[in-house]
Amino acid sequence: MTRSDLISLIRRKRSFLCIGLDSDLSKIPPHLLDDEDPVFAFNKAIVDATHELTVAIKPNFAFYESRGILGFASLEKTIRYVNDRYSGELFTIADAKRGDIGNTSEQYARAVFDITSSGMEFDAVTVAPYMGEDSVKPFLSYPGKWIIVLALTSNKGAMDFQFFSDGKRRLFEQVLIRSAAWGSPENMMFVVGATQAAMLADIRKIVPGHFLLVPGVGAQGGSLEEVGRFGLNHDCGLLVNSSRGILYSSTGKDFAEKARSEAIRMQNEMAGILASGGL
Amino acid sequence: MTRSDLISLIRRKRSFLCIGLDSDLSKIPPHLLDDEDPVFAFNKAIVDATHELTVAIKPNFAFYESRGILGFASLEKTIRYVNDRYSGELFTIADAKRGDIGNTSEQYARAVFDITSSGMEFDAVTVAPYMGEDSVKPFLSYPGKWIIVLALTSNKGAMDFQFFSDGKRRLFEQVLIRSAAWGSPENMMFVVGATQAAMLADIRKIVPGHFLLVPGVGAQGGSLEEVGRFGLNHDCGLLVNSSRGILYSSTGKDFAEKARSEAIRMQNEMAGILASGGL
Repeated sequence: MTRSDLISLIRRKRSFLCIGLDSDLSKIPPHLLDDEDPVFAFNKAIVDATHELTVAIKPNFAFYESRGILGFASLEKTIRYVNDRYSGELFTIADAKRGDIGNTSEQYARAVFDITSSGMEFDAVTVAPYMGEDSVKPFLSYPGKWIIVLALTSNKGAMDFQFFSDGKRRLFEQVLIRSAAWGSPENMMFVVGATQAAMLADIRKIVPGHFLLVPGVGAQGGSLEEVGRFGLNHDCGLLVNSSRGILYSSTGKDFAEKARSEAIRMQNEMAGILASGGL
Repeated sequence: MTRSDLISLIRRKRSFLCIGLDSDLSKIPPHLLDDEDPVFAFNKAIVDATHELTVAIKPNFAFYESRGILGFASLEKTIRYVNDRYSGELFTIADAKRGDIGNTSEQYARAVFDITSSGMEFDAVTVAPYMGEDSVKPFLSYPGKWIIVLALTSNKGAMDFQFFSDGKRRLFEQVLIRSAAWGSPENMMFVVGATQAAMLADIRKIVPGHFLLVPGVGAQGGSLEEVGRFGLNHDCGLLVNSSRGILYSSTGKDFAEKARSEAIRMQNEMAGILASGGL
């Protein structure tokens, strides 16, 4: 999906909501456990109930890998379903935090972008910057595909290394500056946690035009209003993720309906933020 | 596997060789392509031919994920085979470079350590440090299991962020110092690329007792002699990886035999290094 298609989607849906499919077999409604593939059934119901309200979905690979081949099958079925049923309607993010030496990152890129190789095709993948340019570049060789580089994350451990400073700038700022040069706002985004909303003002000075993927609203305590205030740019430039807050609104048969209610609540707030930003 | 078991293995086999199973369908001998699972057949032949000469094997997850479910099946079969056939004889490393917020790293840990959940169980997993303590700790909650933290990698991109300095120390040194406090030499190792062999002297000042996993000998240009000279400690403290240099010594029917010859060559050199270190 191109940047202009993504922006159109945001304007049309009045939303910059991303739903994180952190789909955990031990947390989904018990009645689904009779299904042949409970996690796929759960994902399908969530996506069907929320697709008009969201612009992106983000399966979190860990929750699938933890179940081995069965989990991998649920993941593959989910992305195939979304690509078939909602083509062009949902921006799809492989949340995998990958990154390794060049010849290995080439293989990770095939895993998420080359359907003829892996059976899966996403629009974007999250990547870890620690190993530098050649660990990231192989993902950028796919036209129309995106990478989303970890910059400032939403967890407590973000303090351990991301604020390490050379006196002029902190590591996350160094990551933004350096890695922005490897791609463009047409094929790169950055992860900036909502728990760091006040930092968004500093970050916007470095990457005014890029989209930011913002996790941490809801269960992790970040504020959507603050994210909008400090992070919105003239193209919106935000994808705000919610996972647990939407997925597990109910463990009853009404789980999809309750997920939809929570997505409506967030979409309404987002429509207000977009309007106040003149979008 | 405990640290003392690993050290015993090194002393007995006179080797600190790790074979990286970067098994690529497009590079394995063509006659294997008729097999039901060519990559598993390849891995099995390589491990059977080299197990007496090596102390560790390291499947590189990217090469399996790139083939989707089929690749995942080859990976699972490989680790099951090694655990069944060579239990206690080979230290097994999931080379996956994982790391995410706590609840997600818990799932990644299940993927590589909890056989009842994922069908796979390794002795160790490689982890990326960028997201800090809570992204790493969930992997340490499994008794007898290890994490191997990226410190200084073997690729050109290592220069981009790992040498970022606060004036007192560089990021990779900060990673060594901080993360060493999250575990102990009994459950943590660090990745240090062989292309950075001269840095091993500095690194040994910070982590004198830890094992180091050293990639980059062979195809990437690192020198085994230098790694031994700067990195060996009183328990050996080294696992030196070779992937392409061993795996693809031949594309003929003699591939396993040729791989064995290359492993013998490395094991001989390692036996010399161990002897000269009084081990």
